[in-house]
Amino acid sequence: MTPRFRTEYDMLGAVDVPADAYHGAHTARAVANFPLTGETLADRPHLVRALAVVKSAAARANAEVGALDPALADAITDVCAELQQGALHEQFVVDLIQGGAGTSTNMNANEVIANRALERLGHPRAAYDVLHPLDHVNLGQSTNDVYPTAVKLALDAHIGELLAALAELGEAFAAKAAEFSDVLKMGRTQLQDAVPMTLGQEFGAFAATLAEDRDRLAEARVLLHELNLGGTAIGTGLNARPGYRERAIEHLRRLTGIPTLVSAPDLVEATQDVGVFVQLSGVLKRIAVKLSKICNDLRLLSSGPQAGFGEIALPARQAGSSIMPGKVNPVIPEAVNQIAFEVIGYDVTVTLAAEGGQLQLNAFEPVIHRALSAGLDHLTAGVGVLTEHCVRGITADRDRLAATVAASTGLVTALSPALGHETACALALEAHHTGRPALDLIRERALLTEAELTALTSPAALTGLPAL
Amino acid sequence: MTPRFRTEYDMLGAVDVPADAYHGAHTARAVANFPLTGETLADRPHLVRALAVVKSAAARANAEVGALDPALADAITDVCAELQQGALHEQFVVDLIQGGAGTSTNMNANEVIANRALERLGHPRAAYDVLHPLDHVNLGQSTNDVYPTAVKLALDAHIGELLAALAELGEAFAAKAAEFSDVLKMGRTQLQDAVPMTLGQEFGAFAATLAEDRDRLAEARVLLHELNLGGTAIGTGLNARPGYRERAIEHLRRLTGIPTLVSAPDLVEATQDVGVFVQLSGVLKRIAVKLSKICNDLRLLSSGPQAGFGEIALPARQAGSSIMPGKVNPVIPEAVNQIAFEVIGYDVTVTLAAEGGQLQLNAFEPVIHRALSAGLDHLTAGVGVLTEHCVRGITADRDRLAATVAASTGLVTALSPALGHETACALALEAHHTGRPALDLIRERALLTEAELTALTSPAALTGLPAL
Amino acid sequence: MTPRFRTEYDMLGAVDVPADAYHGAHTARAVANFPLTGETLADRPHLVRALAVVKSAAARANAEVGALDPALADAITDVCAELQQGALHEQFVVDLIQGGAGTSTNMNANEVIANRALERLGHPRAAYDVLHPLDHVNLGQSTNDVYPTAVKLALDAHIGELLAALAELGEAFAAKAAEFSDVLKMGRTQLQDAVPMTLGQEFGAFAATLAEDRDRLAEARVLLHELNLGGTAIGTGLNARPGYRERAIEHLRRLTGIPTLVSAPDLVEATQDVGVFVQLSGVLKRIAVKLSKICNDLRLLSSGPQAGFGEIALPARQAGSSIMPGKVNPVIPEAVNQIAFEVIGYDVTVTLAAEGGQLQLNAFEPVIHRALSAGLDHLTAGVGVLTEHCVRGITADRDRLAATVAASTGLVTALSPALGHETACALALEAHHTGRPALDLIRERALLTEAELTALTSPAALTGLPAL
Amino acid sequence: MTPRFRTEYDMLGAVDVPADAYHGAHTARAVANFPLTGETLADRPHLVRALAVVKSAAARANAEVGALDPALADAITDVCAELQQGALHEQFVVDLIQGGAGTSTNMNANEVIANRALERLGHPRAAYDVLHPLDHVNLGQSTNDVYPTAVKLALDAHIGELLAALAELGEAFAAKAAEFSDVLKMGRTQLQDAVPMTLGQEFGAFAATLAEDRDRLAEARVLLHELNLGGTAIGTGLNARPGYRERAIEHLRRLTGIPTLVSAPDLVEATQDVGVFVQLSGVLKRIAVKLSKICNDLRLLSSGPQAGFGEIALPARQAGSSIMPGKVNPVIPEAVNQIAFEVIGYDVTVTLAAEGGQLQLNAFEPVIHRALSAGLDHLTAGVGVLTEHCVRGITADRDRLAATVAASTGLVTALSPALGHETACALALEAHHTGRPALDLIRERALLTEAELTALTSPAALTGLPAL
Repeated sequence: MTPRFRTEYDMLGAVDVPADAYHGAHTARAVANFPLTGETLADRPHLVRALAVVKSAAARANAEVGALDPALADAITDVCAELQQGALHEQFVVDLIQGGAGTSTNMNANEVIANRALERLGHPRAAYDVLHPLDHVNLGQSTNDVYPTAVKLALDAHIGELLAALAELGEAFAAKAAEFSDVLKMGRTQLQDAVPMTLGQEFGAFAATLAEDRDRLAEARVLLHELNLGGTAIGTGLNARPGYRERAIEHLRRLTGIPTLVSAPDLVEATQDVGVFVQLSGVLKRIAVKLSKICNDLRLLSSGPQAGFGEIALPARQAGSSIMPGKVNPVIPEAVNQIAFEVIGYDVTVTLAAEGGQLQLNAFEPVIHRALSAGLDHLTAGVGVLTEHCVRGITADRDRLAATVAASTGLVTALSPALGHETACALALEAHHTGRPALDLIRERALLTEAELTALTSPAALTGLPAL
Repeated sequence: MTPRFRTEYDMLGAVDVPADAYHGAHTARAVANFPLTGETLADRPHLVRALAVVKSAAARANAEVGALDPALADAITDVCAELQQGALHEQFVVDLIQGGAGTSTNMNANEVIANRALERLGHPRAAYDVLHPLDHVNLGQSTNDVYPTAVKLALDAHIGELLAALAELGEAFAAKAAEFSDVLKMGRTQLQDAVPMTLGQEFGAFAATLAEDRDRLAEARVLLHELNLGGTAIGTGLNARPGYRERAIEHLRRLTGIPTLVSAPDLVEATQDVGVFVQLSGVLKRIAVKLSKICNDLRLLSSGPQAGFGEIALPARQAGSSIMPGKVNPVIPEAVNQIAFEVIGYDVTVTLAAEGGQLQLNAFEPVIHRALSAGLDHLTAGVGVLTEHCVRGITADRDRLAATVAASTGLVTALSPALGHETACALALEAHHTGRPALDLIRERALLTEAELTALTSPAALTGLPAL
Repeated sequence: MTPRFRTEYDMLGAVDVPADAYHGAHTARAVANFPLTGETLADRPHLVRALAVVKSAAARANAEVGALDPALADAITDVCAELQQGALHEQFVVDLIQGGAGTSTNMNANEVIANRALERLGHPRAAYDVLHPLDHVNLGQSTNDVYPTAVKLALDAHIGELLAALAELGEAFAAKAAEFSDVLKMGRTQLQDAVPMTLGQEFGAFAATLAEDRDRLAEARVLLHELNLGGTAIGTGLNARPGYRERAIEHLRRLTGIPTLVSAPDLVEATQDVGVFVQLSGVLKRIAVKLSKICNDLRLLSSGPQAGFGEIALPARQAGSSIMPGKVNPVIPEAVNQIAFEVIGYDVTVTLAAEGGQLQLNAFEPVIHRALSAGLDHLTAGVGVLTEHCVRGITADRDRLAATVAASTGLVTALSPALGHETACALALEAHHTGRPALDLIRERALLTEAELTALTSPAALTGLPAL
Repeated sequence: MTPRFRTEYDMLGAVDVPADAYHGAHTARAVANFPLTGETLADRPHLVRALAVVKSAAARANAEVGALDPALADAITDVCAELQQGALHEQFVVDLIQGGAGTSTNMNANEVIANRALERLGHPRAAYDVLHPLDHVNLGQSTNDVYPTAVKLALDAHIGELLAALAELGEAFAAKAAEFSDVLKMGRTQLQDAVPMTLGQEFGAFAATLAEDRDRLAEARVLLHELNLGGTAIGTGLNARPGYRERAIEHLRRLTGIPTLVSAPDLVEATQDVGVFVQLSGVLKRIAVKLSKICNDLRLLSSGPQAGFGEIALPARQAGSSIMPGKVNPVIPEAVNQIAFEVIGYDVTVTLAAEGGQLQLNAFEPVIHRALSAGLDHLTAGVGVLTEHCVRGITADRDRLAATVAASTGLVTALSPALGHETACALALEAHHTGRPALDLIRERALLTEAELTALTSPAALTGLPAL
């Protein structure tokens, strides 16, 4: 009968490890120490792949500077390639929230890579005298340079997905802007009727604002490309061979295809500083704020159907009520609002974790990674459903929109330069209190000619657009 | 000619102090050290008065246990009485944000009291051999017990003001609830028309929710009454005479008229812990959230006037636009929203300051005090204008409200038990798509008798109210 | 061959549902609409059980008031009992973040209960003419009263677990306080040596502060017991039979064993208000702040081992570094710090969601539930490992502590009343600059007698404790 | 006798205005409406000057496109020049927190400029038929383009001051880095002794991290240069003459000397979007986080003096305690910590205000301006005192630092590649438990030669620096 456990040893003594596990003693201790959220490294495939990339780059660089037997380096890089393909992710079992500044994440990777490499080389698990998690897989490295490097590469991948999702949403809004380019409506400021505009301008602004967000996100992404790999424990590079650092970064560029990866100019600073994550979090918060504002507007514009604004209709996605027949709710924007609130909360989490860094290291990078990666994933998913299940199917109630423009005293603003501010003001108040259209009052009193009225209230004059 | 400065000495050497200033060397150094926000202790009269109360209680207690010459104690308490009356507040010149855990605040009080007492006793400024800021005014005390005690008493006074303002606002909403008790309208969930209710119920809910907030605030207030005075530097009571602590608390009860003031059971804990401020801040945030939600609702219900909900009108308080004639904006609720956002931000400030406490003290109590006192003051002011300049003058557009109820498919919900959910659902959809009132369809098809319709759609049946 | 799907119909048309699924059309649509976080209702067993309790109470109450066939009521309550036992939780497949204010959660429960009841009665899936998810399981209910009621009951269960964990942690600290009651050490304020205390006092303060937190949490818990069940869609109770509400609450008391469950006095307010969740979140944040401060202290007191405070040692739980041999890190407190940061972030999420409520409902309760339940779970887990894997194994370095007390100028404070503040000050500075113990200087100059010195520096005199 | 008030009229009727006030009816109403914080526009001279710049640019542009009588334009620009010089700021009396999206701020400026121009032209106050606050000073403008434009220009000025202060602080840290470049010390990760570094590297990292922050702040500043002036009410440019917008921006460039000021490409988006303020706030939060972390480190490194780290000494700025003789506290870093906490809280305020924007406008820009301008001012002041009163006077305790390096087991890491990880680990544990220096154990057992030891533990080898 096969034993269920093998025994490994570390500085604290013997540890039972599941016999067929690729991970080892450190991982087993970490699993026991951190039964906290139920979310494990395996739930973040971008991070697992990034760890594989870093370990592969380090092994190649170590081999090139003569620190590592090329055969061992090959064995390590082969396993890393498997991990990049998605293999063995289930072996990454440590909780995402963990003490130790990511040490358990790094060790989980070191142990899985070592044992899988041993297996490929024909050795049993834990034959660490052949290939050791620390002496070979982690050679010339420290958690303190490996972990933030891997986190940055993982976040870069997450960001790529969000950028693509935001681009699709922007296109969907732009398509609606074109579709609604001739639909005149009342613009509103402070929820009060203001002056006319087109529904196309309203949706065009959503597209424009998201384009700006993509620019900000792309800028924050580039900041992630400055790496501290090679700085080892505190940035002094202790125990890394000369030449290793430059070669490791070069291999990272090759393996990721990201040409802008560079070594940080001050590695001591780069090892302790998490400003780049604070910056990214701030940009995600900004995106969340924008999306929430847009969803608020969509819900407001589609409010009703009778006793609300009722200007647009969102696609019906599900029955809206367990009690009210026929009710349809704006469930997709509501879901995105909630993701936005979550991301805004994560920004505070990241802030506190960043502020808590001490001296040469920030021990709280795991929760920073968890918050940022969850935020990015949820935003990407939310933006996707908003595009697919909501924006693309939005329709306009053109009759209602036209009627509100005709009835509105807001038109008076356009006539104010011709009438004078005080006359215009008096007219607007009279129209509001009597319920009579302001244009009728103007015509009745012959304050402006019909030609003037036509010119001043043409859609082009009202909206600043060349033609409608 | 009178010299403009006198020279005082402290452990760091000589300090120039304005010749006629009541404060002394420590205060002068603090003014130089903290030119930060421009807001000084004098901007918080509740705190200055609370400091006077604490110093008075300490002097009396010290005299009673034989630690302080009764004549000096009398001199001190006389000055404290003056401060409580509002005198000499302009001598409290240290910035509200200050390092030193409140030491400069305590010393500013010690020095002003000492010099004013010397003056009353016929001595010149700084004759500290007669009456010393530390050896007499601060006798048996430490900043670490004086400062949090004074802050708690000051916050108690602020809270009293906010409770009164909230009570008035609640009454204003209750009066509107009575006024609008017979006004039927469509209730809304998720901004979609739901089922009928009265406008009185809507305003009644605002009154009810504020009443709950007052309860929570009153509970948080009581927690402030547990004091660490007598614990001195770290809660061990070092250098305080036996009996002093109990008597000092007793004098605080007498001077403040707050019978629930008590000594904390664990003075070491009470000296380092700021949980009571976190709790209070959480309750202020809750009040801010409620007020913001109410203001959002008021702005939404008064949106329009044509192209919005237009159910109520807020009193016009000022011209709404520099460009749009006749526009009137909901400026009062908007101002309260902003105060709410400010208070919610302060809660994060308080949280960070609280989390930053270390070992036997929290050095960041000054910013906690500043955030809480500003939040309380601004909430009190905002609630006041909301009551006075907005809620009391709200009017309802009864015609519009009645029309929306009549037109709404939301009535179908009330008929759903009689019709069956699926029939009701089909009817609601048909009514929505054809624009025909659902009641017409039901009558046309004789799905319910006229008597059934009358019974099921009576205001009482719809709103759950005994009579309308 | 068995078909893989069955077809169900709702107001939007036909929906494919997995043939053997207990859930139905609405759930299937919700799964398609909300592929957002990957966390489903099944990941919150407290919520699934609470939904079962609510549905059971409603069925019984409906039967008692004659609204529901007793046989159907029995069928429903039998299934609810199964759910309470843990059955069928895997059928709760909707994402925790969902639009619709919890409608999909409610419908997931309605559908699972209906289909499982049908199965027990010998009917096929979806034989809704016999027992309907809406007309029978959801009878007299709305998501808007069912969902918040279930969320409150679920949170009550979470809170019970956290209270128990906090009590254990408090006991662990109290045990250490007793163990270290005779260990004199320097207290510190603002990270500077202050005056002596015992290590027992330091740990006792941790126990005391957590006891206060338990009190606050218990108070917040009671607020959850005010329920809006029976208010249906907006609190007017439309479509709920007379007597139903009171009986439903009575059944909730019976089924949960919570005697303090009551009906809210203003159901319109109770339906829209989420103040109770804001309050709870504020208290969780307070607990997070306290735990983080305690963990910061533990990490600081155990810093070193050579170049730090080195006053206590935390149990070694795992190798601390992948590069630094023999390094052991405070991984357990670090993990708890991170959970605290997460919870503080969630408080902002809850705040935004609460502020976003509009008119008669808050559509964002799902994210409020997710944040609060995650926070409670993670705090409970974190407190558990802190107790078990850290606090219980803490040891003191008594030699080092004694040495720092002997060397400290902080003792001078105790002699200050006898020496006078200015003499004491000069002595302290001289001791600091020369590195000579202050007591030596005092003896050398015969400023105090040996008897005075002994009396003033006895542990009892220094720490305010009756005996050491 | 001179009357104390004059009467002005607006759309709501008559208003009493102090007879000699330059401001008019709108301002008077706003003062009555917003008695909220006590902080007025006059407390933000950068904003008053920016308003003057905008009004001047608008007047010139209007004159050039033939919309405004050149004589009136000259009168307006002359007054604006006076305001830029600091005149009449006391006339800006509206509270910083105000409803109306800045309308009262804009009107306060319009009225002051009109009345002062009238005065210069020899007319009495309120002779608005000659020169009107709206028809002339506000010509072709709306609050909705004027106010955000002025806020952006004001913030640009604030940012210039903070950048200068941060540069000085960076230089002060760099000077300390040079001074301490040869001081070896133990680096720490997770508060545990790690591996050696120099104190110069530690201070150099502070300088480097602040340099990065300056870069981020400069990037955020440029985003402020995209303006919506000319978009009027909602971005459609209604009532602005052709050519006005381009010329107004050109005049802004001339008046401010900022060549990068440009017109936003989508003015509808630019009018409603406050993303630029969210971005700036996120960067200020990042700076706050960095400063707080640095201050935490300074307080930790200077902790003691006996029972702490005691590696550096901060300049003594004031007596540290009212009870503990000779105590000196790190009051300057403590003050900066508190400003950082304030700024982090403001970021949440800004976030909520931004999320609350609706449709074509964000009504909450006043609180956004208040939070950002206060944060910038306080950060600038705090950075200034940190530079001047703390960093420049820091000294190192070289003896203590050398002793901790010699005693530390952290040196073993440097020997680990030579010894093998497991041997190194065993040695480190033995050294820790016996209290014997690890180097002694190695020499005793001849594990390495003296030459190897010398090479591996040289300062250059340990710190990665070319020479020490």
